[in-house]
Amino acid sequence: MIWIEHAFQHVFGIDTRLSSETADAVYDQIAACLAQPAFRPRALFERFGIEALSTTESALDDLRWHKMIRDSDWNGNVVTTYRPDTVVDPEFDGFANNIERLGDITGEDATTWTGYLAAHRKRRAFFKTFGATASDHGHATARTEDLPQDVAARLFDKALRGQHNAEDADRFRGHMLTEMARMSLDDGLVLQIHAGSARNHSDDVMARFGRDKGYDIPTQTDYVAALKPLLNAVGGEAGLTIIVFTLDETAFSRELAPLAGVYPALKLGPPWWFHDSAEGMRRFRETVTETAGFYNTVGFNDDTRAFCSIPARHDVARRVDCAYLATLVATGRLAEDEAAQVAYDLTYRLAKQAYRL
Amino acid sequence: MIWIEHAFQHVFGIDTRLSSETADAVYDQIAACLAQPAFRPRALFERFGIEALSTTESALDDLRWHKMIRDSDWNGNVVTTYRPDTVVDPEFDGFANNIERLGDITGEDATTWTGYLAAHRKRRAFFKTFGATASDHGHATARTEDLPQDVAARLFDKALRGQHNAEDADRFRGHMLTEMARMSLDDGLVLQIHAGSARNHSDDVMARFGRDKGYDIPTQTDYVAALKPLLNAVGGEAGLTIIVFTLDETAFSRELAPLAGVYPALKLGPPWWFHDSAEGMRRFRETVTETAGFYNTVGFNDDTRAFCSIPARHDVARRVDCAYLATLVATGRLAEDEAAQVAYDLTYRLAKQAYRL
Amino acid sequence: MIWIEHAFQHVFGIDTRLSSETADAVYDQIAACLAQPAFRPRALFERFGIEALSTTESALDDLRWHKMIRDSDWNGNVVTTYRPDTVVDPEFDGFANNIERLGDITGEDATTWTGYLAAHRKRRAFFKTFGATASDHGHATARTEDLPQDVAARLFDKALRGQHNAEDADRFRGHMLTEMARMSLDDGLVLQIHAGSARNHSDDVMARFGRDKGYDIPTQTDYVAALKPLLNAVGGEAGLTIIVFTLDETAFSRELAPLAGVYPALKLGPPWWFHDSAEGMRRFRETVTETAGFYNTVGFNDDTRAFCSIPARHDVARRVDCAYLATLVATGRLAEDEAAQVAYDLTYRLAKQAYRL
Repeated sequence: MIWIEHAFQHVFGIDTRLSSETADAVYDQIAACLAQPAFRPRALFERFGIEALSTTESALDDLRWHKMIRDSDWNGNVVTTYRPDTVVDPEFDGFANNIERLGDITGEDATTWTGYLAAHRKRRAFFKTFGATASDHGHATARTEDLPQDVAARLFDKALRGQHNAEDADRFRGHMLTEMARMSLDDGLVLQIHAGSARNHSDDVMARFGRDKGYDIPTQTDYVAALKPLLNAVGGEAGLTIIVFTLDETAFSRELAPLAGVYPALKLGPPWWFHDSAEGMRRFRETVTETAGFYNTVGFNDDTRAFCSIPARHDVARRVDCAYLATLVATGRLAEDEAAQVAYDLTYRLAKQAYRL
Repeated sequence: MIWIEHAFQHVFGIDTRLSSETADAVYDQIAACLAQPAFRPRALFERFGIEALSTTESALDDLRWHKMIRDSDWNGNVVTTYRPDTVVDPEFDGFANNIERLGDITGEDATTWTGYLAAHRKRRAFFKTFGATASDHGHATARTEDLPQDVAARLFDKALRGQHNAEDADRFRGHMLTEMARMSLDDGLVLQIHAGSARNHSDDVMARFGRDKGYDIPTQTDYVAALKPLLNAVGGEAGLTIIVFTLDETAFSRELAPLAGVYPALKLGPPWWFHDSAEGMRRFRETVTETAGFYNTVGFNDDTRAFCSIPARHDVARRVDCAYLATLVATGRLAEDEAAQVAYDLTYRLAKQAYRL
Repeated sequence: MIWIEHAFQHVFGIDTRLSSETADAVYDQIAACLAQPAFRPRALFERFGIEALSTTESALDDLRWHKMIRDSDWNGNVVTTYRPDTVVDPEFDGFANNIERLGDITGEDATTWTGYLAAHRKRRAFFKTFGATASDHGHATARTEDLPQDVAARLFDKALRGQHNAEDADRFRGHMLTEMARMSLDDGLVLQIHAGSARNHSDDVMARFGRDKGYDIPTQTDYVAALKPLLNAVGGEAGLTIIVFTLDETAFSRELAPLAGVYPALKLGPPWWFHDSAEGMRRFRETVTETAGFYNTVGFNDDTRAFCSIPARHDVARRVDCAYLATLVATGRLAEDEAAQVAYDLTYRLAKQAYRL
């Protein structure tokens, strides 16, 4: 609601409140705007002052739209992100076919464990040529594994032959996070984990409309045990950045802030999805800061699909963070000049640094 | 403490603070009040401006006290609520006898699955003649099930013969919530679920004084998996109202607000029991509103057994909700005239609408 | 950060901000201070106005340092606390040897169950001669058990012979909490439970540096089921004090405040470890007070290993508690004179009373 009002006002110059009486006039004003060159996406990109925008593409994507941008005369910085769900999740539709395609694209025999890993490395390198600085992984839980290579190889074979059960699939996904982190040690991609959503809660909506139609509900997530294999494998690497996002706010003060406070590789992403809101952001700072500080968080980044909401979301984040900082100053917990520095860092510098932009 | 001071001051006109010195005088003043006709329950009912008061009766109750009110010359609106614990919980003392009595009362063969369901329908209809607009269900967890009818029938037989184990009983209770919801589709009763209390925590108190003597402690409750069968069966029905209450506040932002935001039938009840308090109410709005809005909640209703605390409880709720709305206005998140409308709705209109009063 | 700045300013009189420019000067000033008699531990003890300071010693400790203090001409009140981890945890390195030493020290046959319990009683009595008023128990979970004596005895035998599995060890630790509580009924020691830390999360740090090197992460903890055996055994004893500390803040409003509100023996310790902070203390009062009140908490006590942070920690606690009380007064929930009394009690009186100092 804040976003839509902000976008109406700041992007489209609408100063009447949306209601049944004003709906037609508002619609007409937006339509009139959108017909103008100044409201084309690239024009808005520049008007919004966007320095970098990340998309997320499947590991199998040919990145043709990114190529189109590169080949154009436009210089906006739009980078891709490596999102390998279709080739790391044995439960994804057509997993075996996806692995074959992965092999075709990369010239590796991706049906062997070592060929499969090599193919990932090649795709990551390819994504980097289109600006990728990160990979992104959306799993139902935060489970990670660090299996011996022969065990991982056998699990991969099983999955390829469709002989895996649910536990095998979950173990394999968990192990692949650690493999991705190891590749990150070499190629520098930031590893993002978006965990804790029970997807497709409505069987009816799933049957009628398919995946990802809005019935995704957060669940309790245990990060302490789940992240242990990954953090034990690579958490001590200061050169690596792992950014964790959560939908379970209770984990911030109890699990995530203590983990981020102690493992050099681990950073906390900003409040995500349902919690990407004024109160959610306030709770984030209140529950994280005293244990993990500001500099184990990564500043604000939004994951909107609504282009015109970008200014609103960053504006809300800036205001909430500044209100929190102001409270620290007013209660004698932070000096005013330090707060100004932190505000700048949370708004701008930390996001650039964390994502290596 | 707020309630007792509010009741002393506003109901009994006591303006001294309760202490060992003032206890006798306070007692005398209350005793003097209670001797007056103006302090009889029906007089207070009118003085408090109560438009509707709901009691909760067992499915086997003959509602004689409701009949007494109806036959009297008093016009206060006191309605019953259908509470079938004794005949839907196989672990309730005397379950099989209760089912027999259910059959006797309704003229159905309640020992068969179809007769049992028919008997429920008749009792619900009978309760409706005494004003019932809702059923109420207090289970230890929020578990629901939507079993095939033959499976449910076999489970019912097992329970009748006392051959159920704990899991059978839990499944059966869970399934009956969905059956109740299906009946609600026909007869319009609102379905209330009060979940998450570990009852009778003290064995000693249980042994000496029996059930429900105050040693009831909230537990962690998973709503995402637990409510899925019910919501998949009937959650999309806009004509149905399911009101969920929780004792696990962490579920508000993580599970309940997202579920209420997406399933048309689901509404969130106000903070309940331990959380029916100023801070509890504040946290409720802060954790629910940004995802579920105000209009997926049902306004305030109290479940007091202390008649004189009714004005206090609603007064606290009004103040806390208005303070929250004022914060939204002061921080530019809601217009002042909208806040006034929402305040009225939360205080009055939504409760009437949700409970079909 | 608050603590270090507070200590620099109030203990060492440093009024410049710590930075790379000022580091040398700050170091020199601290070094100069520490060379003075006024900065010796006993001098600071008196300057800080400490009435009582508790250390924690293993059940096998000879308390020589306490004896040294007693034999000195210094009158500072430094008492010990009975911490029997090494002899109640079958998974502790050298458990069987520790039990033998326990027998040697006490002259009991500590390898029999009854001798073992008698040895504990003797050690507790010995600790009391050095001022002990409490025992302290740090377990990974809050699990308690109240086993029949013969079952406990067999479990003890199994543990002594190293034939226990993880579940046996956990059960035994859980049962020993109840045995300790029973001893407390006789000797008056306060029972402290510090539960819910997953210790030694980093295998690498554990392998290189050993236990307790900072990789301890809080986990979700269920107190309702876990504390039930203990509370059923002794929770009704008004003469007993059990103080529970948690690292899972979500348990405060849901589980711990309701439990402390109803079991006379149970009190809630102040925010602990990661939550011993301004925001953590605020959340503690906001989530506990409306259900458990102030007088089922024990005032503030810190568990610092940083001597110079003691004034800072108590100062933060006083400020946060007073800010909470001021909010109650400003919103009409508490009278000003009552708030002043509560402030004094939280700061001073309750801690002395709870710990029988």
